[in-house]
Amino acid sequence: MNNSAIGVFDSGMGGLTSVKELSRIMPNENIIYFGDTARIPYGTRSKETILKYAEQDIAFMKKHDVKMIIAACGTVSSVLGMNKNAAGDIPFTGVLLPTVQAACAKTKNGKIGVIGTAATIRSGSYGKAIRTIRSDISITGIACPMFVPLVENGFTGRDNPVAKLVAEQYLAPIKKEGVDTLILGCTHYPILQDVIADYMGKDVELISSGSEAAKYACAFLTGKDMLTERTEKGTVSFYSSDSVDMFRENAQAFLGGQLCGTVTKVETEELTSLA
Amino acid sequence: MNNSAIGVFDSGMGGLTSVKELSRIMPNENIIYFGDTARIPYGTRSKETILKYAEQDIAFMKKHDVKMIIAACGTVSSVLGMNKNAAGDIPFTGVLLPTVQAACAKTKNGKIGVIGTAATIRSGSYGKAIRTIRSDISITGIACPMFVPLVENGFTGRDNPVAKLVAEQYLAPIKKEGVDTLILGCTHYPILQDVIADYMGKDVELISSGSEAAKYACAFLTGKDMLTERTEKGTVSFYSSDSVDMFRENAQAFLGGQLCGTVTKVETEELTSLA
Repeated sequence: MNNSAIGVFDSGMGGLTSVKELSRIMPNENIIYFGDTARIPYGTRSKETILKYAEQDIAFMKKHDVKMIIAACGTVSSVLGMNKNAAGDIPFTGVLLPTVQAACAKTKNGKIGVIGTAATIRSGSYGKAIRTIRSDISITGIACPMFVPLVENGFTGRDNPVAKLVAEQYLAPIKKEGVDTLILGCTHYPILQDVIADYMGKDVELISSGSEAAKYACAFLTGKDMLTERTEKGTVSFYSSDSVDMFRENAQAFLGGQLCGTVTKVETEELTSLA
Repeated sequence: MNNSAIGVFDSGMGGLTSVKELSRIMPNENIIYFGDTARIPYGTRSKETILKYAEQDIAFMKKHDVKMIIAACGTVSSVLGMNKNAAGDIPFTGVLLPTVQAACAKTKNGKIGVIGTAATIRSGSYGKAIRTIRSDISITGIACPMFVPLVENGFTGRDNPVAKLVAEQYLAPIKKEGVDTLILGCTHYPILQDVIADYMGKDVELISSGSEAAKYACAFLTGKDMLTERTEKGTVSFYSSDSVDMFRENAQAFLGGQLCGTVTKVETEELTSLA
Protein backbone atom coordinates (compact mmCIF):
# COMPACT_ATOMS: atom_id res chain seq x y z
CA MET A 1 0.00 0.00 0.00
CA ASN A 2 1.23 3.45 -0.83
CA ASN A 3 -0.89 6.60 -0.57
CA SER A 4 1.51 8.97 -2.33
CA ALA A 5 0.44 10.52 -5.62
CA ILE A 6 1.32 9.37 -9.12
CA GLY A 7 3.34 12.02 -10.96
CA VAL A 8 2.66 12.70 -14.63
CA PHE A 9 4.42 15.25 -16.81
CA ASP A 10 4.39 16.42 -20.40
CA SER A 11 5.63 19.34 -22.48
CA GLY A 12 2.10 20.73 -22.33
CA MET A 13 -1.43 19.45 -22.37
CA GLY A 14 -1.03 16.14 -24.24
CA GLY A 15 -0.20 14.18 -21.09
CA LEU A 16 -3.70 14.91 -19.84
CA THR A 17 -4.82 12.03 -22.09
CA SER A 18 -2.86 9.87 -19.63
CA VAL A 19 -4.45 11.57 -16.62
CA LYS A 20 -7.90 10.95 -18.08
CA GLU A 21 -7.18 7.22 -18.35
CA LEU A 22 -5.51 7.04 -14.90
CA SER A 23 -8.58 8.66 -13.31
CA ARG A 24 -10.82 6.20 -15.09
CA ILE A 25 -8.98 3.00 -14.13
CA MET A 26 -7.64 4.06 -10.69
CA PRO A 27 -10.14 6.66 -9.47
CA ASN A 28 -8.88 6.66 -5.88
CA GLU A 29 -5.30 7.59 -6.69
CA ASN A 30 -4.02 11.13 -6.21
CA ILE A 31 -2.32 12.54 -9.29
CA ILE A 32 0.15 15.39 -9.70
CA TYR A 33 0.39 16.70 -13.25
CA PHE A 34 2.98 19.09 -14.62
CA GLY A 35 2.60 20.63 -18.10
CA ASP A 36 5.65 22.61 -19.23
CA THR A 37 3.53 25.05 -21.25
CA ALA A 38 6.15 27.83 -21.07
CA ARG A 39 8.55 25.67 -23.12
CA ILE A 40 6.22 23.61 -25.30
CA PRO A 41 6.76 22.14 -27.91
CA TYR A 42 9.57 19.71 -27.09
CA GLY A 43 9.28 17.70 -30.32
CA THR A 44 10.98 20.21 -32.63
CA ARG A 45 13.98 20.77 -30.31
CA SER A 46 17.38 19.09 -30.23
CA LYS A 47 18.04 15.91 -28.24
CA GLU A 48 20.27 17.80 -25.76
CA THR A 49 17.61 20.40 -25.00
CA ILE A 50 14.90 17.74 -24.61
CA LEU A 51 17.10 15.72 -22.22
CA LYS A 52 17.76 18.83 -20.12
CA TYR A 53 14.09 19.77 -19.92
CA ALA A 54 13.17 16.15 -19.07
CA GLU A 55 15.73 16.06 -16.26
CA GLN A 56 14.24 19.24 -14.80
CA ASP A 57 10.68 17.90 -15.14
CA ILE A 58 11.65 14.67 -13.35
CA ALA A 59 13.38 16.66 -10.58
CA PHE A 60 10.19 18.72 -10.17
CA MET A 61 8.12 15.54 -9.85
CA LYS A 62 10.54 14.06 -7.27
CA LYS A 63 10.20 17.20 -5.15
CA HIS A 64 6.53 16.31 -4.80
CA ASP A 65 7.28 12.94 -3.28
CA VAL A 66 5.41 10.86 -5.86
CA LYS A 67 5.42 7.05 -5.84
CA MET A 68 5.78 6.68 -9.61
CA ILE A 69 6.60 9.04 -12.47
CA ILE A 70 5.04 8.83 -15.92
CA ALA A 71 6.62 10.81 -18.75
CA ALA A 72 3.37 11.17 -20.67
CA CYS A 73 5.25 12.74 -23.56
CA GLY A 74 6.21 10.84 -26.67
CA THR A 75 9.24 13.03 -27.29
CA VAL A 76 10.73 12.69 -23.79
CA SER A 77 9.98 8.95 -23.78
CA SER A 78 11.77 8.56 -27.09
CA VAL A 79 14.94 10.39 -26.19
CA LEU A 80 15.12 8.52 -22.86
CA GLY A 81 14.52 5.24 -24.70
CA MET A 82 13.99 2.14 -22.56
CA ASN A 83 15.76 3.65 -19.54
CA LYS A 84 13.70 2.57 -16.51
CA ASN A 85 16.04 4.36 -14.13
CA ALA A 86 15.54 7.86 -15.48
CA ALA A 87 14.08 8.92 -12.12
CA GLY A 88 16.67 7.14 -9.93
CA ASP A 89 14.97 5.06 -7.24
CA ILE A 90 11.43 6.20 -8.09
CA PRO A 91 9.63 3.80 -10.47
CA PHE A 92 9.45 5.44 -13.88
CA THR A 93 7.84 4.82 -17.21
CA GLY A 94 7.60 6.68 -20.46
CA VAL A 95 5.00 5.90 -23.08
CA LEU A 96 7.38 3.90 -25.26
CA LEU A 97 7.38 0.41 -23.73
CA PRO A 98 3.65 0.32 -22.82
CA THR A 99 2.74 1.46 -26.31
CA VAL A 100 4.89 -0.98 -28.27
CA GLN A 101 3.71 -3.86 -26.06
CA ALA A 102 0.12 -2.97 -26.91
CA ALA A 103 0.88 -2.57 -30.61
CA CYS A 104 2.73 -5.89 -30.85
CA ALA A 105 -0.19 -7.63 -29.15
CA LYS A 106 -2.71 -6.01 -31.51
CA THR A 107 -1.17 -6.40 -34.95
CA LYS A 108 -2.26 -9.35 -37.04
CA ASN A 109 -0.39 -8.70 -40.28
CA GLY A 110 2.84 -7.65 -38.55
CA LYS A 111 2.81 -4.17 -40.06
CA ILE A 112 2.90 -1.31 -37.57
CA GLY A 113 2.94 2.40 -38.32
CA VAL A 114 4.38 4.99 -35.93
CA ILE A 115 3.64 8.70 -36.00
CA GLY A 116 5.28 11.21 -33.68
CA THR A 117 7.19 14.46 -33.44
CA ALA A 118 10.38 15.09 -35.43
CA ALA A 119 12.54 14.23 -32.39
CA THR A 120 10.63 11.00 -31.75
CA ILE A 121 10.91 9.71 -35.31
CA ARG A 122 14.54 10.88 -35.64
CA SER A 123 15.41 8.81 -32.55
CA GLY A 124 14.09 5.58 -34.11
CA SER A 125 13.07 4.62 -30.58
CA TYR A 126 9.78 2.92 -31.43
CA GLY A 127 11.44 0.66 -34.01
CA LYS A 128 14.17 -0.33 -31.55
CA ALA A 129 11.62 -0.99 -28.79
CA ILE A 130 9.38 -3.08 -31.06
CA ARG A 131 12.35 -5.21 -32.12
CA THR A 132 13.12 -6.10 -28.48
CA ILE A 133 9.68 -7.74 -28.40
CA ARG A 134 9.27 -9.15 -31.92
CA SER A 135 11.81 -9.22 -34.71
CA ASP A 136 9.33 -10.04 -37.49
CA ILE A 137 7.50 -6.70 -37.51
CA SER A 138 7.66 -4.26 -40.39
CA ILE A 139 7.66 -0.66 -39.12
CA THR A 140 6.92 2.60 -40.96
CA GLY A 141 7.63 5.79 -39.02
CA ILE A 142 6.59 9.27 -40.11
CA ALA A 143 7.19 12.57 -38.33
CA CYS A 144 4.05 14.73 -38.20
CA PRO A 145 5.37 18.04 -36.80
CA MET A 146 2.23 19.98 -37.79
CA PHE A 147 -0.08 17.80 -35.67
CA VAL A 148 0.80 19.51 -32.35
CA PRO A 149 0.11 23.03 -33.69
CA LEU A 150 -3.09 21.77 -35.31
CA VAL A 151 -4.25 20.47 -31.92
CA GLU A 152 -3.09 23.58 -30.06
CA ASN A 153 -4.90 25.87 -32.47
CA GLY A 154 -8.17 23.98 -32.61
CA PHE A 155 -7.89 22.52 -36.12
CA THR A 156 -9.16 19.19 -34.86
CA GLY A 157 -12.74 18.50 -35.95
CA ARG A 158 -13.51 15.46 -38.09
CA ASP A 159 -14.45 17.76 -40.99
CA ASN A 160 -11.73 20.38 -40.58
CA PRO A 161 -10.28 20.77 -44.11
CA VAL A 162 -6.79 21.79 -42.92
CA ALA A 163 -6.53 18.87 -40.49
CA LYS A 164 -7.74 16.47 -43.19
CA LEU A 165 -5.27 17.77 -45.76
CA VAL A 166 -2.29 17.67 -43.38
CA ALA A 167 -3.27 14.18 -42.16
CA GLU A 168 -3.53 12.93 -45.73
CA GLN A 169 -0.10 14.32 -46.62
CA TYR A 170 1.62 12.80 -43.60
CA LEU A 171 -0.23 9.49 -43.47
CA ALA A 172 -0.26 8.51 -47.15
CA PRO A 173 3.06 6.56 -47.00
CA ILE A 174 1.88 4.67 -43.90
CA LYS A 175 -1.46 3.81 -45.45
CA LYS A 176 0.31 2.60 -48.59
CA GLU A 177 2.33 0.15 -46.47
CA GLY A 178 -0.90 -1.54 -45.38
CA VAL A 179 -0.34 -1.29 -41.63
CA ASP A 180 -3.13 -2.70 -39.44
CA THR A 181 -1.92 -0.91 -36.28
CA LEU A 182 -0.93 2.74 -35.91
CA ILE A 183 0.88 4.03 -32.84
CA LEU A 184 -0.05 7.62 -31.95
CA GLY A 185 3.43 8.23 -30.53
CA CYS A 186 2.67 11.71 -29.22
CA THR A 187 0.13 12.28 -26.46
CA HIS A 188 -1.42 15.18 -28.37
CA TYR A 189 -2.51 13.02 -31.26
CA PRO A 190 -5.64 11.38 -29.73
CA ILE A 191 -7.27 14.81 -30.11
CA LEU A 192 -6.95 14.27 -33.88
CA GLN A 193 -8.17 10.68 -33.59
CA ASP A 194 -11.30 11.13 -35.74
CA VAL A 195 -9.38 12.73 -38.58
CA ILE A 196 -6.64 10.08 -38.43
CA ALA A 197 -9.12 7.20 -38.16
CA ASP A 198 -11.23 8.46 -41.07
CA TYR A 199 -8.18 8.61 -43.32
CA MET A 200 -6.64 5.30 -42.23
CA GLY A 201 -9.93 3.38 -42.44
CA LYS A 202 -11.77 1.25 -39.91
CA ASP A 203 -9.49 -1.78 -40.22
CA VAL A 204 -6.55 0.08 -38.70
CA GLU A 205 -6.28 0.01 -34.92
CA LEU A 206 -5.05 3.26 -33.31
CA ILE A 207 -2.92 2.92 -30.17
CA SER A 208 -2.97 5.95 -27.85
CA SER A 209 0.39 6.25 -26.10
CA GLY A 210 -1.06 8.26 -23.20
CA SER A 211 -3.70 5.65 -22.39
CA GLU A 212 -1.26 2.75 -22.68
CA ALA A 213 1.15 4.42 -20.25
CA ALA A 214 -1.71 4.77 -17.75
CA LYS A 215 -2.66 1.09 -18.07
CA TYR A 216 0.99 0.09 -17.66
CA ALA A 217 1.28 2.18 -14.48
CA CYS A 218 -1.85 0.52 -13.10
CA ALA A 219 -0.46 -2.96 -13.75
CA PHE A 220 2.92 -1.99 -12.24
CA LEU A 221 1.47 -0.48 -9.05
CA THR A 222 -0.93 -3.41 -8.63
CA GLY A 223 1.91 -5.91 -9.07
CA LYS A 224 4.11 -4.16 -6.49
CA ASP A 225 1.22 -3.68 -4.05
CA MET A 226 1.64 0.07 -4.29
CA LEU A 227 -1.98 1.11 -4.86
CA THR A 228 -3.58 3.53 -2.43
CA GLU A 229 -5.72 2.22 0.39
CA ARG A 230 -8.05 5.23 0.09
CA THR A 231 -11.61 4.35 -0.78
CA GLU A 232 -12.73 7.86 -1.71
CA LYS A 233 -12.00 9.58 -5.05
CA GLY A 234 -8.44 10.89 -5.40
CA THR A 235 -7.49 14.49 -6.19
CA VAL A 236 -5.62 15.83 -9.20
CA SER A 237 -3.22 18.75 -8.65
CA PHE A 238 -2.10 20.50 -11.83
CA TYR A 239 1.06 22.57 -12.31
CA SER A 240 1.77 24.71 -15.34
CA SER A 241 4.84 26.76 -16.30
CA ASP A 242 2.78 29.27 -18.29
CA SER A 243 -0.50 30.99 -17.44
CA VAL A 244 -2.84 29.08 -15.14
CA ASP A 245 -5.87 30.58 -16.92
CA MET A 246 -4.67 29.41 -20.33
CA PHE A 247 -4.06 25.95 -18.84
CA ARG A 248 -7.62 25.77 -17.48
CA GLU A 249 -9.02 26.94 -20.79
CA ASN A 250 -7.16 24.40 -22.91
CA ALA A 251 -7.37 21.40 -20.57
CA GLN A 252 -10.97 20.55 -21.35
CA ALA A 253 -10.30 19.15 -24.84
CA PHE A 254 -7.75 16.70 -23.43
CA LEU A 255 -9.65 15.66 -20.31
CA GLY A 256 -12.91 15.24 -22.18
CA GLY A 257 -14.66 17.43 -19.60
CA GLN A 258 -14.19 20.09 -16.95
CA LEU A 259 -10.85 20.32 -15.16
CA CYS A 260 -11.44 19.45 -11.47
CA GLY A 261 -8.53 20.42 -9.24
CA THR A 262 -6.14 23.23 -8.42
CA VAL A 263 -3.74 24.67 -11.02
CA THR A 264 -0.50 26.19 -9.71
CA LYS A 265 2.06 28.23 -11.62
CA VAL A 266 5.67 27.00 -11.71
CA GLU A 267 8.36 29.52 -12.68
CA THR A 268 10.86 28.39 -15.32
CA GLU A 269 13.63 29.71 -13.03
CA GLU A 270 12.54 27.07 -10.51
CA LEU A 271 12.83 24.39 -13.18
CA THR A 272 16.26 25.44 -14.43
CA SER A 273 17.56 25.53 -10.85
CA LEU A 274 16.45 21.94 -10.19
CA ALA A 275 18.75 19.96 -12.45
CA MET B 1 30.71 57.41 -34.72
CA ASN B 2 30.22 54.18 -32.84
CA ASN B 3 31.84 50.89 -33.81
CA SER B 4 29.88 48.65 -31.45
CA ALA B 5 27.54 46.06 -32.90
CA ILE B 6 23.79 46.32 -33.40
CA GLY B 7 21.94 43.73 -31.31
CA VAL B 8 18.95 41.90 -32.77
CA PHE B 9 16.87 39.26 -31.04
CA ASP B 10 13.81 37.15 -31.74
CA SER B 11 12.07 34.08 -30.35
CA GLY B 12 13.70 32.10 -33.15
CA MET B 13 14.62 32.57 -36.78
CA GLY B 14 12.10 35.22 -37.87
CA GLY B 15 14.30 38.12 -36.78
CA LEU B 16 16.79 37.08 -39.44
CA THR B 17 14.54 38.91 -41.91
CA SER B 18 15.69 42.04 -40.04
CA VAL B 19 19.33 40.96 -40.16
CA LYS B 20 19.05 40.43 -43.90
CA GLU B 21 17.80 43.99 -44.38
CA LEU B 22 20.37 45.48 -41.95
CA SER B 23 23.20 43.78 -43.84
CA ARG B 24 21.84 45.13 -47.11
CA ILE B 25 21.46 48.78 -46.06
CA MET B 26 24.35 49.02 -43.55
CA PRO B 27 26.86 46.41 -44.77
CA ASN B 28 29.73 47.68 -42.61
CA GLU B 29 27.93 47.33 -39.29
CA ASN B 30 28.65 44.40 -36.98
CA ILE B 31 25.52 42.56 -35.88
CA ILE B 32 24.88 40.27 -32.92
CA TYR B 33 21.80 38.10 -33.32
CA PHE B 34 20.13 35.98 -30.66
CA GLY B 35 17.39 33.48 -31.54
CA ASP B 36 15.70 31.93 -28.50
CA THR B 37 15.09 28.64 -30.31
CA ALA B 38 14.92 26.62 -27.08
CA ARG B 39 11.77 28.54 -26.07
CA ILE B 40 10.16 29.38 -29.40
CA PRO B 41 7.27 30.13 -30.04
CA TYR B 42 6.57 33.22 -27.93
CA GLY B 43 3.30 34.12 -29.67
CA THR B 44 1.12 31.48 -28.05
CA ARG B 45 2.32 32.20 -24.50
CA SER B 46 0.88 34.50 -21.84
CA LYS B 47 1.83 38.17 -21.57
CA GLU B 48 3.73 37.56 -18.29
CA THR B 49 5.86 34.80 -19.79
CA ILE B 50 6.61 36.85 -22.91
CA LEU B 51 7.65 39.86 -20.80
CA LYS B 52 9.97 37.70 -18.72
CA TYR B 53 11.60 36.12 -21.78
CA ALA B 54 11.96 39.56 -23.41
CA GLU B 55 13.65 40.96 -20.30
CA GLN B 56 16.14 38.08 -20.35
CA ASP B 57 16.78 38.52 -24.08
CA ILE B 58 17.44 42.25 -23.61
CA ALA B 59 19.78 41.52 -20.70
CA PHE B 60 21.67 39.06 -22.91
CA MET B 61 22.04 41.72 -25.62
CA LYS B 62 23.27 44.32 -23.11
CA LYS B 63 25.95 41.91 -21.93
CA HIS B 64 27.38 42.09 -25.45
CA ASP B 65 27.83 45.84 -25.28
CA VAL B 66 25.69 46.68 -28.32
CA LYS B 67 24.93 50.26 -29.38
CA MET B 68 21.27 49.60 -30.20
CA ILE B 69 18.83 46.74 -29.59
CA ILE B 70 16.16 45.65 -32.04
CA ALA B 71 13.43 43.31 -30.81
CA ALA B 72 12.85 41.78 -34.25
CA CYS B 73 9.89 39.87 -32.89
CA GLY B 74 6.31 40.98 -33.42
CA THR B 75 5.15 39.36 -30.20
CA VAL B 76 7.77 40.97 -27.94
CA SER B 77 7.28 44.33 -29.69
CA SER B 78 3.55 44.13 -29.10
CA VAL B 79 3.65 43.30 -25.42
CA LEU B 80 6.28 46.02 -24.84
CA GLY B 81 4.11 48.47 -26.85
CA MET B 82 5.65 51.87 -27.60
CA ASN B 83 8.11 51.66 -24.69
CA LYS B 84 11.38 53.10 -26.04
CA ASN B 85 13.12 52.57 -22.71
CA ALA B 86 12.77 48.81 -22.58
CA ALA B 87 16.57 48.50 -22.66
CA GLY B 88 17.32 51.30 -20.20
CA ASP B 89 19.96 53.65 -21.58
CA ILE B 90 20.63 51.63 -24.74
CA PRO B 91 18.57 52.83 -27.74
CA PHE B 92 15.84 50.29 -28.39
CA THR B 93 13.21 49.61 -30.99
CA GLY B 94 10.69 46.90 -31.58
CA VAL B 95 9.01 46.36 -34.93
CA LEU B 96 5.79 48.10 -33.92
CA LEU B 97 6.50 51.82 -34.48
CA PRO B 98 8.59 51.41 -37.68
CA THR B 99 5.93 49.16 -39.17
CA VAL B 100 2.90 51.33 -38.44
CA GLN B 101 4.74 54.42 -39.72
CA ALA B 102 5.40 52.62 -43.01
CA ALA B 103 1.82 51.34 -43.24
CA CYS B 104 0.28 54.76 -42.55
CA ALA B 105 2.50 56.28 -45.23
CA LYS B 106 1.53 53.58 -47.75
CA THR B 107 -2.24 53.27 -47.40
CA LYS B 108 -4.39 55.23 -49.84
CA ASN B 109 -7.86 54.07 -48.85
CA GLY B 110 -7.19 54.24 -45.10
CA LYS B 111 -7.86 50.54 -44.57
CA ILE B 112 -5.01 48.59 -42.98
CA GLY B 113 -4.95 44.90 -42.09
CA VAL B 114 -2.73 43.46 -39.37
CA ILE B 115 -1.80 39.81 -39.01
CA GLY B 116 0.27 38.45 -36.14
CA THR B 117 0.50 35.85 -33.40
CA ALA B 118 -2.29 35.34 -30.87
CA ALA B 119 -0.42 37.44 -28.28
CA THR B 120 0.16 40.27 -30.77
CA ILE B 121 -3.45 40.54 -31.88
CA ARG B 122 -4.77 40.08 -28.31
CA SER B 123 -2.67 43.07 -27.22
CA GLY B 124 -4.29 45.38 -29.78
CA SER B 125 -0.90 47.08 -29.99
CA TYR B 126 -0.90 47.77 -33.74
CA GLY B 127 -4.28 49.49 -33.60
CA LYS B 128 -3.17 51.67 -30.67
CA ALA B 129 0.10 52.57 -32.41
CA ILE B 130 -1.63 53.42 -35.69
CA ARG B 131 -4.06 55.71 -33.87
CA THR B 132 -1.19 57.72 -32.39
CA ILE B 133 -0.25 58.60 -36.00
CA ARG B 134 -3.62 58.82 -37.75
CA SER B 135 -7.06 58.63 -36.23
CA ASP B 136 -8.93 58.08 -39.52
CA ILE B 137 -7.63 54.58 -40.27
CA SER B 138 -9.84 51.51 -40.24
CA ILE B 139 -7.94 48.51 -38.87
CA THR B 140 -8.71 44.79 -39.14
CA GLY B 141 -6.53 42.50 -37.04
CA ILE B 142 -6.47 38.70 -37.30
CA ALA B 143 -4.35 36.23 -35.32
CA CYS B 144 -2.72 33.61 -37.56
CA PRO B 145 -1.22 31.18 -35.02
CA MET B 146 -0.65 28.46 -37.61
CA PHE B 147 1.64 30.61 -39.75
CA VAL B 148 4.72 30.14 -37.53
CA PRO B 149 4.44 26.32 -37.53
CA LEU B 150 3.81 26.40 -41.29
CA VAL B 151 7.06 28.33 -41.76
CA GLU B 152 9.00 26.19 -39.29
CA ASN B 153 7.88 22.99 -40.98
CA GLY B 154 8.49 24.06 -44.55
CA PHE B 155 4.87 24.48 -45.69
CA THR B 156 5.78 27.70 -47.45
CA GLY B 157 5.89 27.31 -51.23
CA ARG B 158 3.58 29.39 -53.40
CA ASP B 159 1.70 26.22 -54.42
CA ASN B 160 1.67 24.45 -51.08
CA PRO B 161 -1.97 23.37 -50.63
CA VAL B 162 -1.88 23.46 -46.82
CA ALA B 163 -0.35 26.94 -46.72
CA LYS B 164 -2.87 28.18 -49.28
CA LEU B 165 -5.83 26.73 -47.37
CA VAL B 166 -4.68 28.11 -43.99
CA ALA B 167 -3.95 31.53 -45.53
CA GLU B 168 -7.38 31.62 -47.13
CA GLN B 169 -9.10 30.77 -43.84
CA TYR B 170 -7.22 33.40 -41.85
CA LEU B 171 -7.15 36.17 -44.44
CA ALA B 172 -10.73 36.03 -45.78
CA PRO B 173 -12.12 38.58 -43.26
CA ILE B 174 -9.25 40.99 -44.01
CA LYS B 175 -9.70 40.67 -47.74
CA LYS B 176 -13.42 41.27 -47.34
CA GLU B 177 -12.68 44.58 -45.59
CA GLY B 178 -10.92 45.82 -48.73
CA VAL B 179 -7.61 46.76 -47.09
CA ASP B 180 -4.92 48.12 -49.42
CA THR B 181 -2.09 47.61 -46.92
CA LEU B 182 -1.34 44.50 -44.87
CA ILE B 183 1.10 44.51 -41.97
CA LEU B 184 2.98 41.22 -41.56
CA GLY B 185 3.19 41.75 -37.81
CA CYS B 186 5.37 38.72 -37.14
CA THR B 187 8.90 38.46 -38.53
CA HIS B 188 8.26 34.87 -39.66
CA TYR B 189 5.55 35.86 -42.11
CA PRO B 190 7.69 37.20 -44.99
CA ILE B 191 8.60 33.56 -45.65
CA LEU B 192 4.92 33.04 -46.56
CA GLN B 193 4.89 36.25 -48.61
CA ASP B 194 4.09 34.59 -51.96
CA VAL B 195 1.15 32.67 -50.54
CA ILE B 196 -0.20 35.74 -48.75
CA ALA B 197 0.32 38.03 -51.76
CA ASP B 198 -1.38 35.59 -54.15
CA TYR B 199 -4.44 35.42 -51.95
CA MET B 200 -4.65 39.15 -51.16
CA GLY B 201 -4.11 40.22 -54.78
CA LYS B 202 -1.59 42.57 -56.36
CA ASP B 203 -3.27 45.77 -55.21
CA VAL B 204 -2.51 45.06 -51.56
CA GLU B 205 0.86 46.24 -50.27
CA LEU B 206 2.55 43.91 -47.77
CA ILE B 207 4.63 45.54 -45.02
CA SER B 208 7.39 43.35 -43.55
CA SER B 209 7.90 44.25 -39.90
CA GLY B 210 11.46 42.90 -39.84
CA SER B 211 12.58 45.04 -42.78
CA GLU B 212 10.90 48.16 -41.45
CA ALA B 213 12.64 47.78 -38.08
CA ALA B 214 15.98 47.57 -39.89
CA LYS B 215 15.28 50.73 -41.91
CA TYR B 216 14.19 52.53 -38.72
CA ALA B 217 17.43 51.52 -36.97
CA CYS B 218 19.43 52.84 -39.93
CA ALA B 219 17.66 56.21 -39.82
CA PHE B 220 18.09 56.41 -36.04
CA LEU B 221 21.82 55.60 -36.04
CA THR B 222 22.44 57.97 -38.94
CA GLY B 223 20.56 60.78 -37.19
CA LYS B 224 22.51 60.28 -33.95
CA ASP B 225 25.84 59.95 -35.77
CA MET B 226 26.22 56.44 -34.38
CA LEU B 227 27.16 54.58 -37.56
CA THR B 228 30.43 52.68 -37.67
CA GLU B 229 33.49 54.27 -39.21
CA ARG B 230 34.62 50.89 -40.57
CA THR B 231 34.85 50.73 -44.32
CA GLU B 232 35.10 46.95 -44.61
CA LYS B 233 32.14 44.56 -44.41
CA GLY B 234 30.85 43.96 -40.87
CA THR B 235 30.53 40.55 -39.19
CA VAL B 236 27.41 38.82 -37.96
CA SER B 237 27.68 36.72 -34.77
CA PHE B 238 24.74 34.43 -34.13
CA TYR B 239 23.62 33.00 -30.78
CA SER B 240 21.02 30.28 -30.38
CA SER B 241 19.52 28.70 -27.26
CA ASP B 242 18.89 25.38 -28.99
CA SER B 243 21.15 23.34 -31.27
CA VAL B 244 23.68 25.30 -33.31
CA ASP B 245 23.39 22.78 -36.15
CA MET B 246 19.62 23.15 -36.34
CA PHE B 247 20.07 26.94 -36.35
CA ARG B 248 22.50 26.77 -39.27
CA GLU B 249 20.18 24.44 -41.16
CA ASN B 250 17.08 26.61 -40.78
CA ALA B 251 18.69 30.04 -41.16
CA GLN B 252 19.04 29.88 -44.92
CA ALA B 253 15.33 30.34 -45.70
CA PHE B 254 15.26 33.56 -43.65
CA LEU B 255 18.56 35.02 -44.80
CA GLY B 256 17.88 34.20 -48.43
CA GLY B 257 21.28 32.56 -48.70
CA GLN B 258 24.10 30.89 -46.78
CA LEU B 259 24.65 31.88 -43.14
CA CYS B 260 28.06 33.61 -42.89
CA GLY B 261 29.28 33.93 -39.33
CA THR B 262 29.80 32.01 -36.11
CA VAL B 263 26.89 30.41 -34.23
CA THR B 264 27.29 30.00 -30.46
CA LYS B 265 25.05 28.07 -28.06
CA VAL B 266 23.48 29.94 -25.14
CA GLU B 267 22.19 27.86 -22.23
CA THR B 268 18.67 28.67 -21.00
CA GLU B 269 20.09 28.65 -17.45
CA GLU B 270 22.25 31.61 -18.48
CA LEU B 271 19.16 33.44 -19.73
CA THR B 272 17.05 32.80 -16.62
CA SER B 273 19.92 33.98 -14.40
CA LEU B 274 20.18 37.32 -16.27
CA ALA B 275 16.89 38.99 -15.36
